[in-house]
Amino acid sequence: MTRDTSDMLADRLRLLGPNVNTFYDNPLHLVKGDGVWVWDAAGRKYLDCYNNVPHVGHCHPDVVAAITRQASTLNTHTRYLHEGILRYVEKLTATFDAPSSTPLDTAIMACTGSEANDIALRMATAVTGQRGVIATDHTYHGNTDAVAQLSMTNPPPTGAGSHVRHVPAPDSYRPLGGEGGMAHAHAFAAAVQAQIDALAASEHGFSALIICPYFCNEGFPNLCDGFLVPTVNAVRAAGGVVIADEVQPGFGRLGSHFWGYQKAGIHPDIVTLGKPMGNGHPVAGVVTSHRCMTAFRESFRYFNTFGGNPVSCAAAEAVLDVIEREGLVERARDSGDYARQGLQQLATKHDCIGDVRGSGLFFGAEMVLDRETREPATAFTNRVANAMRDQGVLLNKLGIHYNTLKIRPNLQFTREHADLLLDTLDGVLSRVPLQP
Amino acid sequence: MTRDTSDMLADRLRLLGPNVNTFYDNPLHLVKGDGVWVWDAAGRKYLDCYNNVPHVGHCHPDVVAAITRQASTLNTHTRYLHEGILRYVEKLTATFDAPSSTPLDTAIMACTGSEANDIALRMATAVTGQRGVIATDHTYHGNTDAVAQLSMTNPPPTGAGSHVRHVPAPDSYRPLGGEGGMAHAHAFAAAVQAQIDALAASEHGFSALIICPYFCNEGFPNLCDGFLVPTVNAVRAAGGVVIADEVQPGFGRLGSHFWGYQKAGIHPDIVTLGKPMGNGHPVAGVVTSHRCMTAFRESFRYFNTFGGNPVSCAAAEAVLDVIEREGLVERARDSGDYARQGLQQLATKHDCIGDVRGSGLFFGAEMVLDRETREPATAFTNRVANAMRDQGVLLNKLGIHYNTLKIRPNLQFTREHADLLLDTLDGVLSRVPLQP
Repeated sequence: MTRDTSDMLADRLRLLGPNVNTFYDNPLHLVKGDGVWVWDAAGRKYLDCYNNVPHVGHCHPDVVAAITRQASTLNTHTRYLHEGILRYVEKLTATFDAPSSTPLDTAIMACTGSEANDIALRMATAVTGQRGVIATDHTYHGNTDAVAQLSMTNPPPTGAGSHVRHVPAPDSYRPLGGEGGMAHAHAFAAAVQAQIDALAASEHGFSALIICPYFCNEGFPNLCDGFLVPTVNAVRAAGGVVIADEVQPGFGRLGSHFWGYQKAGIHPDIVTLGKPMGNGHPVAGVVTSHRCMTAFRESFRYFNTFGGNPVSCAAAEAVLDVIEREGLVERARDSGDYARQGLQQLATKHDCIGDVRGSGLFFGAEMVLDRETREPATAFTNRVANAMRDQGVLLNKLGIHYNTLKIRPNLQFTREHADLLLDTLDGVLSRVPLQP
Repeated sequence: MTRDTSDMLADRLRLLGPNVNTFYDNPLHLVKGDGVWVWDAAGRKYLDCYNNVPHVGHCHPDVVAAITRQASTLNTHTRYLHEGILRYVEKLTATFDAPSSTPLDTAIMACTGSEANDIALRMATAVTGQRGVIATDHTYHGNTDAVAQLSMTNPPPTGAGSHVRHVPAPDSYRPLGGEGGMAHAHAFAAAVQAQIDALAASEHGFSALIICPYFCNEGFPNLCDGFLVPTVNAVRAAGGVVIADEVQPGFGRLGSHFWGYQKAGIHPDIVTLGKPMGNGHPVAGVVTSHRCMTAFRESFRYFNTFGGNPVSCAAAEAVLDVIEREGLVERARDSGDYARQGLQQLATKHDCIGDVRGSGLFFGAEMVLDRETREPATAFTNRVANAMRDQGVLLNKLGIHYNTLKIRPNLQFTREHADLLLDTLDGVLSRVPLQP
């Protein structure tokens, strides 16, 4: 740790308070970003395989130009008419598909994914008249008072309200009941049904299931096609709504589809958006049908001063335009497939790799102490992430046992970058001992 | 209403849903802003006497340059070290004063005032171990599920939780119990004390009083020096904390002080910031003592992806620098004093002006049907705001009876602009009939 780093950590403690965590044992002091690369204060260059916020590349010139142009022209709010929000919501909702009876063709603009999920919970209440909500036991949907209660990994000290119920996160490597495929899907749906029943019998009633359709924080399990269909059917049969949190999988990251719910083959009632939407500019949104939007707008008087301002809309529109013009969904598929195959190759050499999973540019490998017992190599995975950082490649860990390498580069990531990632990982896995 | 306007309203209904309100009977389609001016799509220029978000002037070039520079260099989050947030929080907290035993010298960065107040409520709970909160009955603190419950003017359909209690908003023109001065102050403190007692006797306990120290939404009453002192003493005696919501009065708007709580002569425990902080860029914050911050950080694992990102910090730092370099607090005082004197002059001519109030660039006049009875001229005030818009001057209305002209221009507003405002208002008050 350089003197510079320890000074900055001391300043953070003094100015930001305790427990404002940094990544890595030796925290990174970043000063510059470009495409898939970031640089630290010492001028060292790192391949960024982790940050999904700069979705179309760090400091993409088209996004910067859009922000500059609009910030120089006008920044105001939605109490005035402005073309920007209308043009953006038109373009955004065109990327959604849903049954023609309930198209996902209307949106609220907000500033953070947390705000979007905070709205979504109230929208579900407006639609159903109920308040009970179901989430997985290893999810994270954001930081507002209402939304933080959904998380068992980041819970408030008083715990969640009794209107929040949890179900075991799907785990394709260690499936519920020991069986994979549709047996696993039905077991998950049954767990959801049990919580629906419990909520229906409570004072809260059942309002919504909120899920990341790719189960990112749960370790992006490799689930069978149609896995979520029995669950969604159970939610609908009980009169509830499905909220798909696309803050991580959305905007083409998964390569196969623009949205995670499309890959999962379901039709959510409400979709929430965040991190990648403005390439780092604070913008987020809720996309839904006219029916749900009307229920919300007739129940709650919602106004967000910064939400849908012209600069945020310009940033978000530039992101959509860059994704299309540069063919970034296709690139996510191509680079992601290539990198995952490379990880599978590494698995033939390194026994610590228990399972390789992913789609597009959200992929990784579950690290185990023993392939037979599948015992999670949690501490080892942490050492690998730190060793990778020291070798100039940024990634991290997540999953139920925090033993899954989380590789989630921005969409400028190519096969060439994948080669550097794989070569570096090969070296690190050869050097870092499984047991210290 | 032009064809353009009706088309855009139809598109808003289709894309954003119902009840997404605009200002004015004839909504404005804005396309450009510069300093205190905005332009509509037809090229018409308006004097903006309303918008506080572009605090240092619409599209201030220094703020745009700071955003462009940082967005071109690096945008990331606080899991990495970055100088920007440290430099900003150092500069920001230097504008606060508090007893040296509990300096307000630490901050959390967020994206919206709503997020800031959502944090503040949990921070108060972390400090006190209690949950009950007191607000005025005519306030608004934001739009998250937790914060929206504080508002009786914008309430959720299910009402607030029983942990929220309200006290009558202070009204200097029609004071509680009929008496002004410290008698009014003690009556307000007694109302707060009654709710403290009620909460202390409930399952929730008493946690915090949250107030805008300038009571902006309540109609910025002209309160005596020390008005809030008995109230703050009551809160402290009961072990509660004081949250000052500076989203509207802060950053020098009041001319006399940098923060509203300083003008009120109190020392809050927690201060929340929003709208003007980044001149329109979505940035907000919570400033508090190390004691409160530590309690929060040790109880809640809070992380905000966009909060404190380098671009937001650069925008916010540029705003502080412009305020200082251009002497905008002094200008707020000078222009505000001049404009308020002009309003008082108009009151000698127009009987509809019942009361002229304000400080710096947050001022206005309460409109009455009769100066003796002080009957609020609510519909008239609405007609005046619309007529002013038609005459090219943007302002709006607020207050307990929505009969107070709300004049809240950005800090580039000079005496010359005040003359235009006053001349236009004189003409409008001469023409618009008190009773239609």
